[in-house]
Amino acid sequence: MRNNMISCSAPGKIYLFGEHAVVYGETAIGCAIELRTRVRVELCDSIIIQSEIGRTGIDFEKHPYISAVVEKMSEIVPIDGVHLKVNSEIPVGSGLSSSAAVTIASIGALNKMFGCGLSLEEIAKMGHEIEIQVQGAASPTDTYVSTFGGVVTIPDRKKLKTPDCGIVIGDTGVFASTKELVANVRKLRESYPHLIEPLMIVIGGISKTAEPFFQTGDYSSIGKLMNVNQGLLDALGVNTLELSKLIYSSRGAGAFGSKSTGGGGGGCMVALAASDKCTQVAEAITGAGGKAIVTKPTEQGLRLE
Amino acid sequence: MRNNMISCSAPGKIYLFGEHAVVYGETAIGCAIELRTRVRVELCDSIIIQSEIGRTGIDFEKHPYISAVVEKMSEIVPIDGVHLKVNSEIPVGSGLSSSAAVTIASIGALNKMFGCGLSLEEIAKMGHEIEIQVQGAASPTDTYVSTFGGVVTIPDRKKLKTPDCGIVIGDTGVFASTKELVANVRKLRESYPHLIEPLMIVIGGISKTAEPFFQTGDYSSIGKLMNVNQGLLDALGVNTLELSKLIYSSRGAGAFGSKSTGGGGGGCMVALAASDKCTQVAEAITGAGGKAIVTKPTEQGLRLE
Repeated sequence: MRNNMISCSAPGKIYLFGEHAVVYGETAIGCAIELRTRVRVELCDSIIIQSEIGRTGIDFEKHPYISAVVEKMSEIVPIDGVHLKVNSEIPVGSGLSSSAAVTIASIGALNKMFGCGLSLEEIAKMGHEIEIQVQGAASPTDTYVSTFGGVVTIPDRKKLKTPDCGIVIGDTGVFASTKELVANVRKLRESYPHLIEPLMIVIGGISKTAEPFFQTGDYSSIGKLMNVNQGLLDALGVNTLELSKLIYSSRGAGAFGSKSTGGGGGGCMVALAASDKCTQVAEAITGAGGKAIVTKPTEQGLRLE
Repeated sequence: MRNNMISCSAPGKIYLFGEHAVVYGETAIGCAIELRTRVRVELCDSIIIQSEIGRTGIDFEKHPYISAVVEKMSEIVPIDGVHLKVNSEIPVGSGLSSSAAVTIASIGALNKMFGCGLSLEEIAKMGHEIEIQVQGAASPTDTYVSTFGGVVTIPDRKKLKTPDCGIVIGDTGVFASTKELVANVRKLRESYPHLIEPLMIVIGGISKTAEPFFQTGDYSSIGKLMNVNQGLLDALGVNTLELSKLIYSSRGAGAFGSKSTGGGGGGCMVALAASDKCTQVAEAITGAGGKAIVTKPTEQGLRLE
């Protein structure tokens, strides 16, 4: 028996540690956050994709990820008509893996609706393939964390204890191309390998050093290590004045620590903060010119709503 | 024959690379700048020390450095009466080695006035002893660079070619205790030696990597390395929002590169910039809330005025 309507959601993701260094095989730590993208699926006569940016059919320009999902799922089961309606709390293009979340939520909803029986592992894998198809290149981390939730080491995929505290996102509102930033870091590393390679290793070392602090709930030490990591991101040239303002303001307001997340060069920063400090951290970020969102880590990845 | 009046000057100093790491034996690069402290000495009936902060006799509270100089020089030659008048372009307590400059200029002037015949090496050494006496601890670098001028590697004291370009100082106006900052870095290093020791080594490596660029006049590469160094200072926890604003603004205005100088935690930043870009870099720093001073590297250390 098929349901007429299915709704699934998948979370966004931040890097608590290790972006950029992860490109060179170093350990990073990703964390699913309680900002979710919801995809509601209803049977209908044709393919309709509806989101904030409009209502289309299969449309690889406007809805590339969902179009690719429908195409890919059609290889498993015939999909004649379905109405996918997207609703997202995750700011787009700011390094919070909004594309992974919409992809995973869409696969999950169609998987359920059409009884395809894909496992979570298979959903994560398909999500990664779709990201590669749409973007040309993609880390498997985003789709993995969005599918499984929680705090995850990369590339080992060890699940760490989810911190029981708040996360405040600060969005600079500045668009930055991750591709370009990764290329700039590569250039710097090629110019000064004897300087930059050791920095990458130290970033990986920070992730490994932080691991036990998740198990013991030592958020203060996690925060201090985030700050060290942030300095190294600055050394790699992916920090900006706008990010720096939000980062320092959040620390001044009592965050355990803060850093940019993802490619940098704009986009978002994240602050780890005690739950009762989140409001003041958010206010400080707003005061420094950012758009603040209070959220928290979540253990829940893809889920039925 | 004695002159009735002698005037000497000595320059301030910035770190182009390597502060903090130099504490752990890593290479740093100091640079004398064309901001000078002038000390005029006249024979008179008693000891008079006159500066911006007032007119005193031997006074270890108000004029500790000059008082110590007069005391020390009196061990070599009887000094019954002398009027020392200080005039300085170097902001006090902002990491530009104002105390070394006033100490060296005072020793130099008395040395000349009373024909003591101290060599420059001896003057630098006495200056260092006086800094230790007054401060409890002091690096020999400040007094060395103020005495000999130019761009100098530390601890090797190799003289590099003086850059033919401008330096813009940005003063945050925030006082910070170098002693406290050095202690904080030490604490961080003791908490995470496997992370922080490699960073110190990379900072030393940056200085060594920069050395040949001074010889070839590749200011663009020197600037890029200053930016990497700045990120590592941020990682060590000695950066602040105020410094960051001035640093990023100076880069935005076309500086080759910029970083904090000295202890950090406030104080000054320095930007290396083409001579014809100095005005716009200075304006950017002013616009970002700092006090800007346009200056340049100087080969001249202690000199007779």
